[in-house]
Amino acid sequence: MGKIKYELLKKDEETKARYGLLHTNYGTFETPIFMPVGTLATVKTLSPEELKDIKCSVILSNTYHLWLRPGEDIVESAGGLHKFMNYDGPILTDSGGFQVFSLANPKDISEEGVKFKSHIDGASLFLTPEKSIAIQNKLDSDIAMSFDECPPASADYNYMKNSIERTLRWAKRGKDVHKNINQSLFGIVQGGAYKDLREFSAKETVKLDFDGYSIGGVANDGESKEDMYKAIDYSIPYLPENKPRYLMGVGEPIDIIEGVIRGIDMFDCVLPTRLARHGNVFTKDGRINIRNAKYKDDFTKIEDCDCYTCKHYTKAYIRHLIVSNESFGARLLSIHNIRFLVKLMEEIRENIKNGTLLEYRKEFIERYYGNKKL
Amino acid sequence: MGKIKYELLKKDEETKARYGLLHTNYGTFETPIFMPVGTLATVKTLSPEELKDIKCSVILSNTYHLWLRPGEDIVESAGGLHKFMNYDGPILTDSGGFQVFSLANPKDISEEGVKFKSHIDGASLFLTPEKSIAIQNKLDSDIAMSFDECPPASADYNYMKNSIERTLRWAKRGKDVHKNINQSLFGIVQGGAYKDLREFSAKETVKLDFDGYSIGGVANDGESKEDMYKAIDYSIPYLPENKPRYLMGVGEPIDIIEGVIRGIDMFDCVLPTRLARHGNVFTKDGRINIRNAKYKDDFTKIEDCDCYTCKHYTKAYIRHLIVSNESFGARLLSIHNIRFLVKLMEEIRENIKNGTLLEYRKEFIERYYGNKKL
Repeated sequence: MGKIKYELLKKDEETKARYGLLHTNYGTFETPIFMPVGTLATVKTLSPEELKDIKCSVILSNTYHLWLRPGEDIVESAGGLHKFMNYDGPILTDSGGFQVFSLANPKDISEEGVKFKSHIDGASLFLTPEKSIAIQNKLDSDIAMSFDECPPASADYNYMKNSIERTLRWAKRGKDVHKNINQSLFGIVQGGAYKDLREFSAKETVKLDFDGYSIGGVANDGESKEDMYKAIDYSIPYLPENKPRYLMGVGEPIDIIEGVIRGIDMFDCVLPTRLARHGNVFTKDGRINIRNAKYKDDFTKIEDCDCYTCKHYTKAYIRHLIVSNESFGARLLSIHNIRFLVKLMEEIRENIKNGTLLEYRKEFIERYYGNKKL
Repeated sequence: MGKIKYELLKKDEETKARYGLLHTNYGTFETPIFMPVGTLATVKTLSPEELKDIKCSVILSNTYHLWLRPGEDIVESAGGLHKFMNYDGPILTDSGGFQVFSLANPKDISEEGVKFKSHIDGASLFLTPEKSIAIQNKLDSDIAMSFDECPPASADYNYMKNSIERTLRWAKRGKDVHKNINQSLFGIVQGGAYKDLREFSAKETVKLDFDGYSIGGVANDGESKEDMYKAIDYSIPYLPENKPRYLMGVGEPIDIIEGVIRGIDMFDCVLPTRLARHGNVFTKDGRINIRNAKYKDDFTKIEDCDCYTCKHYTKAYIRHLIVSNESFGARLLSIHNIRFLVKLMEEIRENIKNGTLLEYRKEFIERYYGNKKL
């Protein structure tokens, strides 16, 4: 069918939240949605069947990592990322920008692109907007992202202004070489917490007419929640209603809820799988760490949940696996943690449909965060 | 139902191979059988459902490791090992002897038991025949093993003679304190490659009347294949026909075939899962290493095999996962490697039933090992 199509089905009356459908070549999913991360063409420890079991409808994969291993040509020869990894649901790829900027020396950022060293063998590499798009074209994800500059949270106004102008030029260069007619391409709005820069970036990016828009620069180290919410609030008014909006790198439950309330449709984060590997578990009443000694003889399930893990395994057993570094433990907790966020999105959508999203937020915060400062 | 029951259904005419059934509280399985190892109450990377999918009917778990983590009392409180790990098939536990002897200083071996240091924190520990049985009673495995001295392959005649006498005294001490009426207990025949010692050890162990007999001391470092076959040949004639015989720690295909031919019913080994983690793969035509660069764009399956891995994944994808240290790779190869050995046992049983086991051995060696020296 070609590009994705976003169908707006309901606008919340009290907030900017939207309920909709995103139609893709690999199926239709409801939004707002959370996408778990499968960096290297695998959502760590999980099979595609397990992702489906927990009703995960779309995943994200990382262009930078796949470029290095196994290489985009191998994925292309396999028939694209879906076939390569045996996953027939929709896949979004990032541009590699976020990883590359975290590896690059500021002096190695030029108008042409970014020079940096491979995290695997230290080899000198160069990534440009054209190269990022060419790689993503070959990966054949359903949604590709424009290659953007990811300025640090601490960037001052002038740095940020120059940066968003460059990101716009890079967005255009990427769009000009984007060739995969079955792949959609998103533009990225940057501008930190500066109102006028977000407005400028959003308006100019929309002029380039992408298939969707992402709000970037909100998941950097040192970014405050206030700045994240400002970044969204300052950008959303200038994004078209008929295109999906994606907040990159955000997976903390409250941030997802606040993002939805501000008009976001899509989220991704490594949080559920990374937490799982360290024994951290999402529960309805807040996050727990299963390594805690009090769980060593706790033969109850994590919570009342419909996932495979909660159906069959006790906290004591999972604790034993995590403490013993057995990967089946990370697998069981990844299943539960992703299911938790997928269910959070189900509840959010239900509350948008019922017009009760603000009550849901209140109830969720009291239950999940209690007296913790957010 | 209590203890296991072995049912001998067919004796091969040309060899000592036997086809039979082993009835346990957790189901009946055909013998000869291979048991994958779930050291810490998990067959590394795999779920119980995956084990069933590949027709794995019985697993082994390690008493030493479970004693240290999570501790036998926790497993007992969970309702035993089956409930603790959500596995409703039969489980055999070893005695801990093999691990303990590899950690102990020879001067710390006394008549009472073995002093050694924990591999986790170096803590000083002491294991005795009574303690091993008490732990296994609490683990509530279907089959427990007697605590035996595991002398090095290089042990001389006198050392070995004293050792098997001690092992007999330990076997009796263990049997005297064994209390779990639903758990069977096996005796272990030792004696290295000394004919008279194996005969003595087998006869005396059988006098103690165990539910089955194991042949130990064949999987030590430095043990030759000839010595392994001798150890079996010298022991088997003195073991009763109506009890199962178990060759401990053996998983190399040719050793399994030769063991069956010599009258063995049960095998266990970490080989299929350990090989998997390093990218080594059993195939009909011999072992391959998937890390080899020639597989990087090989989009064919490992081989014509009915396992999940071969149904859905290419060598190129599995290679990518293994090279990238993604645990899903170890999981996919563990599935295939265990299935390979389970299928080997299916074929062996079929050939016993058909009276064609020696032809099968010849065909297998030519196909799998080719010109390699065995």
